Amino acid sequence: MRQSEHFPDSVTVIEVGPRDGFQNVKGEIPTEEKVKIINLLATSGLKRIEATSFTHPKWIPQLKDAAEVIRCINRGSDVVFSALIPNEKGLDRAIENGVEEVVFVVSASDALNRENFNQSTAESLAELAAISPKAKRNGVRLRGAIAASFGCPLEGSVAVERVIDVAKAFQKAEVCEVSLADTTGMAHPLQVRDLLCRLFAEFSDLPLALHFHDTRRIGLVNVYSAWQIGARIFESSIAGLGGCPYAPGAPGNVATESLVYMFHRIGVETGVDLESLMECSRITKEVVGGIDPDRCHG
Amino acid sequence: MRQSEHFPDSVTVIEVGPRDGFQNVKGEIPTEEKVKIINLLATSGLKRIEATSFTHPKWIPQLKDAAEVIRCINRGSDVVFSALIPNEKGLDRAIENGVEEVVFVVSASDALNRENFNQSTAESLAELAAISPKAKRNGVRLRGAIAASFGCPLEGSVAVERVIDVAKAFQKAEVCEVSLADTTGMAHPLQVRDLLCRLFAEFSDLPLALHFHDTRRIGLVNVYSAWQIGARIFESSIAGLGGCPYAPGAPGNVATESLVYMFHRIGVETGVDLESLMECSRITKEVVGGIDPDRCHG
Repeated sequence: MRQSEHFPDSVTVIEVGPRDGFQNVKGEIPTEEKVKIINLLATSGLKRIEATSFTHPKWIPQLKDAAEVIRCINRGSDVVFSALIPNEKGLDRAIENGVEEVVFVVSASDALNRENFNQSTAESLAELAAISPKAKRNGVRLRGAIAASFGCPLEGSVAVERVIDVAKAFQKAEVCEVSLADTTGMAHPLQVRDLLCRLFAEFSDLPLALHFHDTRRIGLVNVYSAWQIGARIFESSIAGLGGCPYAPGAPGNVATESLVYMFHRIGVETGVDLESLMECSRITKEVVGGIDPDRCHG
Repeated sequence: MRQSEHFPDSVTVIEVGPRDGFQNVKGEIPTEEKVKIINLLATSGLKRIEATSFTHPKWIPQLKDAAEVIRCINRGSDVVFSALIPNEKGLDRAIENGVEEVVFVVSASDALNRENFNQSTAESLAELAAISPKAKRNGVRLRGAIAASFGCPLEGSVAVERVIDVAKAFQKAEVCEVSLADTTGMAHPLQVRDLLCRLFAEFSDLPLALHFHDTRRIGLVNVYSAWQIGARIFESSIAGLGGCPYAPGAPGNVATESLVYMFHRIGVETGVDLESLMECSRITKEVVGGIDPDRCHG
């Protein structure tokens, strides 16, 4: 167990709705609506927001306005806005647009990495040799994310060793943090416990974040299980948007408002005002529901 | 902790949808549809089903067909069908109709007991002196349920001692089992852990079941927390129906299919076939959604 058994009383919540949520909406959300929601999220007390992704618009047309979003949101606050990057080109665009933190995603499953990024996991990791120093030179914080950490939609189960290998490569590239993503939504609480026990033992100096989907309604159980074992950094998505390209119609990511509610109930601080967040969720559902009625998760 | 730390690998699931779910549906579900769903639930492998409630139709008109439901369902199987009773009159009707198990509900909160049953908790418990021997004489198994075990919609928090007092009265009346209900949907996992630690220590010979609502999406976390501390009997509702008279529009009870999915994922047997259950959930949503579109929880 990473942290003491006395359960320190705060966690960090990383809001990923504007990236992971909006990229999964079928229709086009107007940029000003995205900006409005991101600003609202920031005023609710969230201190870390994944605002967009610098992926080629051919692959994710929903986020083709990445540069404009970054330019238009209120940056004067103490909130860190990050952007996902799939490769060095994404980093270049992020730097051009003054992004302070980028999230480089690599899949622990080779098949999924090829599917998503047209190259093997090893090839993606090799890019770190260019990405990491370039990010550092430009004062951009680099964060790693490991897709398919708990299973792969194409390969099925993924060996813990693969996750550890990717995390080691990230650590060598001096990322500030590594996020473990349950891409398939198939993680379960005992798997979470076991994987984290291994990883916390292996990476005592590397902050680890968790990103759970709620595809089968057990996302929050996984959050709780991770918290019990010592995890203190969680990604979630306002209104539960996003998260489930492999299970159409199913719920998406763990909803930020549910996660914050749970932590507040057990006496764990998040720094977030739950009422503002609920209002933000309501507005997000309104905006997204007007565009893509399938994506109105509760 | 009641059970060993090695976590025995099976739990008992009590389906309460036909009672707790159907009584919360706005329109009238035809009796034959109820019977169809109950029979389907039984064929999915569920061994305990709360089929209806012998409450005066003035209070719960949705279940005015209790006798007909009990008469029409397939009773030849190895499934125990129970019925809720609010008082001795309910027991009389249950006996008349050949019910083999009745659930007598008392609230740990006096205010809620008055609201629901027009008498104090003590007055309800005094009825046990008549109910218990009458049930025994008629070969009907008596089970107790404690409403507001984790908080009260009227009084707020409820002292553990109140829950213990009611459980003791039930134990004295020789009930076969006591169910602890999270009537408000406000239970949280650490509260569950603490309450169960107390109760398991106090009632080592009395089986305790848990009934959680999913009002704020943490119902399954509470189930998991209870399981971690040794609970092995859980109530849930197909399609998540029911459960939230105090939070309109919110999800209802923990959905049986989500609960079964979670337990199967962590290697805990339920005896239930998840695919049959999913199909049953789909049919239930279809039936109920045609009658009460507000009650189509996912």
